[in-house]
Amino acid sequence: MRIALDDGVVRRVDTLAVEEPLEIRVGGTPLAVTMRTPGADVELAAGFLVSEGVIGAGEEFHSAIHCGGPGTGGVENTYNVLDVTLAPGVPPPAPDVARAFYTTSSCGVCGKASIDAVETVSRYDVAGDDVVVDAADLVTYPVRLRERQDVFEKTGGLHAAALFSAATGELLVLREDVGRHNAVDKVIGWALLNDRLPLRGTVLQVSGRASFELVQKAVMAGIPVLAAVSAPSSLAAELAEKSGLTLVGFLRGRSMNVYSHPHRVRVEQAASDDLLVTEGAGHDHR
Amino acid sequence: MRIALDDGVVRRVDTLAVEEPLEIRVGGTPLAVTMRTPGADVELAAGFLVSEGVIGAGEEFHSAIHCGGPGTGGVENTYNVLDVTLAPGVPPPAPDVARAFYTTSSCGVCGKASIDAVETVSRYDVAGDDVVVDAADLVTYPVRLRERQDVFEKTGGLHAAALFSAATGELLVLREDVGRHNAVDKVIGWALLNDRLPLRGTVLQVSGRASFELVQKAVMAGIPVLAAVSAPSSLAAELAEKSGLTLVGFLRGRSMNVYSHPHRVRVEQAASDDLLVTEGAGHDHR
Repeated sequence: MRIALDDGVVRRVDTLAVEEPLEIRVGGTPLAVTMRTPGADVELAAGFLVSEGVIGAGEEFHSAIHCGGPGTGGVENTYNVLDVTLAPGVPPPAPDVARAFYTTSSCGVCGKASIDAVETVSRYDVAGDDVVVDAADLVTYPVRLRERQDVFEKTGGLHAAALFSAATGELLVLREDVGRHNAVDKVIGWALLNDRLPLRGTVLQVSGRASFELVQKAVMAGIPVLAAVSAPSSLAAELAEKSGLTLVGFLRGRSMNVYSHPHRVRVEQAASDDLLVTEGAGHDHR
Repeated sequence: MRIALDDGVVRRVDTLAVEEPLEIRVGGTPLAVTMRTPGADVELAAGFLVSEGVIGAGEEFHSAIHCGGPGTGGVENTYNVLDVTLAPGVPPPAPDVARAFYTTSSCGVCGKASIDAVETVSRYDVAGDDVVVDAADLVTYPVRLRERQDVFEKTGGLHAAALFSAATGELLVLREDVGRHNAVDKVIGWALLNDRLPLRGTVLQVSGRASFELVQKAVMAGIPVLAAVSAPSSLAAELAEKSGLTLVGFLRGRSMNVYSHPHRVRVEQAASDDLLVTEGAGHDHR
């Protein structure tokens, strides 16, 4: 039912973004449950395993099948349980794999430990990626992301993540999900399944904010530039700085904030001649 | 660094929303880790325990203290580990308490099982709450939420949740967090610690979307009306319908969509006289 105070009440049928739980298993062992938009479950599971440091190359991923839940006797398949088989010789994940990024023996749970854990687990060198992207290209990414979003216009309920080639500006892949972490995992899973890891020379554009976990996922996949439409958190900016990732936020209209490693963002001479220095309160994340 | 294509490059200091991990323990046993905005950790932990069905009244919560992480020898306190002591006789949570809402023995992991689990665990009767809220009052809630947000204006990085009295329109409490689930848990934890559960006659207003988990949290706290600025998911609308909760989405300007139990939203006669019936595609969540 739609209520508009100035126009009255309209009974109507609304299309909503579908949300269903997915249980990700590895070798039959349950690893995680996430609320997600169905439709790219293999990519989602593969990307999740990359994000958590379990796998990092297509050859380490053998296969994945949807399976019935416990108690179904194998008859009913809800398509909400996905069992991943790793390639022979790939060690299975620890039961609390996601926890590893928050806890180390040195200082318990803290932001510094979380950042150190990403450094330790990551197998790709983001800092060494010398790709450069034009600021004039970057500002087109959120617009193109929005144009290509299949479901958003209808439901307003989906986050999106898209991967662009910094060199050509080509949109390589776009995925949507009710959960913003899942949209990014789907993109990374697509890359793994297409043997494109590490994602050197790419820009990951996301529709929302940039949290610690989104920067973590980009670093784990070897993505050198993460651009968000909204704000980053303090820990996201710190991890980006430490990992050598260029973090862009508030990418809207024709402007953006760059929070780390701005050398990868090229601004035309005419604009950069107007360089100003200002002061303000808070942390310095230039 | 701020880059505006038409105005040039400005080096400046940005204020970012702080994000740090929090490990919630109960009786010394680690239960969950969440990335949160520090500052209301006891409320956050208390609300999380209500949301997960561990406690439901202030007297079941004994105390909580920040403690050092493992390896600190008790010397260093990162204020990122909070240990909750439940009242004597209150059963400790199962190790995978959050999982209980996604998995039942009957159908494995699926949306229906998730909804049934909330029904089973919830101890308050949301359906029986006959509170009514004026649509003309409801449309003021997002504005007042935004006005009262302390940090958002500076950082743009925080989600907010606020509780309103449906009868008086009074804003009872507002909490912010980098995670939208955490903002709601803080509000519910505030209510538990102030012996206000169940939250009969209240409206929970959130700054973002309405997911399954936000509806779950509202139901667990006995909140009869959940209003979101953005879209709900399909499973959020289904759980709201089944639980007797009134779910409002796209609450912007002077209009809104009501997805379940619209009898709690009162529209002035002048407006409701204009009632129209239209048809459309997709699920029917009137």
